Amino acid sequence: MLLHTIKEVREQVKEWKKRGLVVGLVPTMGALHAGHLSLIKKAVERCDRVVVSVFVNPIQFCPGEDLDKYPRTLEADTKMCDDAGVSIVFAPSPNEMYGEGQISSNDFLTYVIPPFFYVNKLCGKSRVGHFDGVCTVVNKLFNIVQPDFAFFGQKDAQQLIIIKKMVKDLNIPVEIVPCPIVREESGLALSSRNKYLSDEDKKEALVLSKILNNINSCYKRGLTDVDALKETAYSFLNEHHELEYLEFMNQDDLEEVTIADNNTRVFIACKVGGVRLIDNILLGE
Amino acid sequence: MLLHTIKEVREQVKEWKKRGLVVGLVPTMGALHAGHLSLIKKAVERCDRVVVSVFVNPIQFCPGEDLDKYPRTLEADTKMCDDAGVSIVFAPSPNEMYGEGQISSNDFLTYVIPPFFYVNKLCGKSRVGHFDGVCTVVNKLFNIVQPDFAFFGQKDAQQLIIIKKMVKDLNIPVEIVPCPIVREESGLALSSRNKYLSDEDKKEALVLSKILNNINSCYKRGLTDVDALKETAYSFLNEHHELEYLEFMNQDDLEEVTIADNNTRVFIACKVGGVRLIDNILLGE
Repeated sequence: MLLHTIKEVREQVKEWKKRGLVVGLVPTMGALHAGHLSLIKKAVERCDRVVVSVFVNPIQFCPGEDLDKYPRTLEADTKMCDDAGVSIVFAPSPNEMYGEGQISSNDFLTYVIPPFFYVNKLCGKSRVGHFDGVCTVVNKLFNIVQPDFAFFGQKDAQQLIIIKKMVKDLNIPVEIVPCPIVREESGLALSSRNKYLSDEDKKEALVLSKILNNINSCYKRGLTDVDALKETAYSFLNEHHELEYLEFMNQDDLEEVTIADNNTRVFIACKVGGVRLIDNILLGE
Repeated sequence: MLLHTIKEVREQVKEWKKRGLVVGLVPTMGALHAGHLSLIKKAVERCDRVVVSVFVNPIQFCPGEDLDKYPRTLEADTKMCDDAGVSIVFAPSPNEMYGEGQISSNDFLTYVIPPFFYVNKLCGKSRVGHFDGVCTVVNKLFNIVQPDFAFFGQKDAQQLIIIKKMVKDLNIPVEIVPCPIVREESGLALSSRNKYLSDEDKKEALVLSKILNNINSCYKRGLTDVDALKETAYSFLNEHHELEYLEFMNQDDLEEVTIADNNTRVFIACKVGGVRLIDNILLGE
């Protein structure tokens, strides 16, 4: 069932809640791929009713980012959701979510702001305001759908950690379920932005997973010094790659580490053919 | 029933919700007086079960404010609530609400930030960060208690407007019920901070309600020019009064007005004997 208004979603969910049904939410920006599908399947398995939100959230895009050209494929998304057993696809307009003229201004909109320590690193450093927009829209979706469980991909690891922190800090009554990264056979992590890659770029894009896998192999063989582990990455890079960051952090609180352990997550962001890609791995996995 | 932990409150409320009972929340900082009692009575009338939170919220106090000396009277508060038919008095510790060591730092805590346009005026101008702390704690309380209705006093009018805006912007599933200001026979608006006033100061404190009533009389007689209405205030002020602001604003969106109408609220803040007092009135009432 495709719904566009908050009111309709609320009424349907209210009816479910009255019957004691367990509700799951999978928040997405659409352009659904097998990565999203794995979240949706997990949600359908675990919950009596599943809502998938499809909303390209304007306030999480920074100036100069790809808001206008971000892929929009609502028809295909809805079909994928229907086939997977989703009860509601919630696809609101920006006006439905933010009201007319309020978009992108914290002069007139209440924001949910994640802690500086969690934001001022990794993707947050180059995408200023991005996680404010993410937390605000996710908070809104939680309030609209009031799910028992919400499913997020491990691919956007910093986002997942920040959302878990928001849920804890604001006592939001929802359980966050992290879902593993889905990869092509080549190792490339699935992303809606992969559509921007040429065939040639797609090969070059393997550099992210190659670097991470190599670091994990070195770690499993006993190398724990982060500087030394970072060193192993550079031989993979060539003129097609514009490395933005390669960082080792405690996966609970995003504290940087100098000696890696089984709670260390390695985060990488790299531009390939002008497309910004991210990936990450938990060491020892 | 006096409860100190989030877990206990959640369990009790969950049981109520299962039975389909309507839940009301009255958020307070304790030191309950007849003003709070009027909110509580309204809540008890309207809801099947009422939670009164008593929490002196550290993150809404600014440096140099009266956090440490703010009156704390939990025993009397609990008795007043019990007598009024309240089901739960929720009195958490700061650690229960924020975790150890996280208090007052937006480096490590997720905040709910109301819009700049609503904050950068009236009390928000002198109390920097105050409404961030208010919105954050109220958001937390909403998530903990999940009330159907929440009751706020009109006395803190800017706070009430900002909370209504937060509820709208974040789609929080709660209905905000505003409650009229309760006054002593003299006209003095009730406030926990009145306890700081000497008998002499208490007389001088009448200046706030006198100015507001006089403005309202002039308005009712046909004066609508805000500059002229402001002029009428100054004859009431003497050396005991330190006027912080006297402002005329649209009561929905806190837009300043130059010509008053029936949707104009007049806001005043004035220090008397070193104690900062506030009051407000809706013109034409």
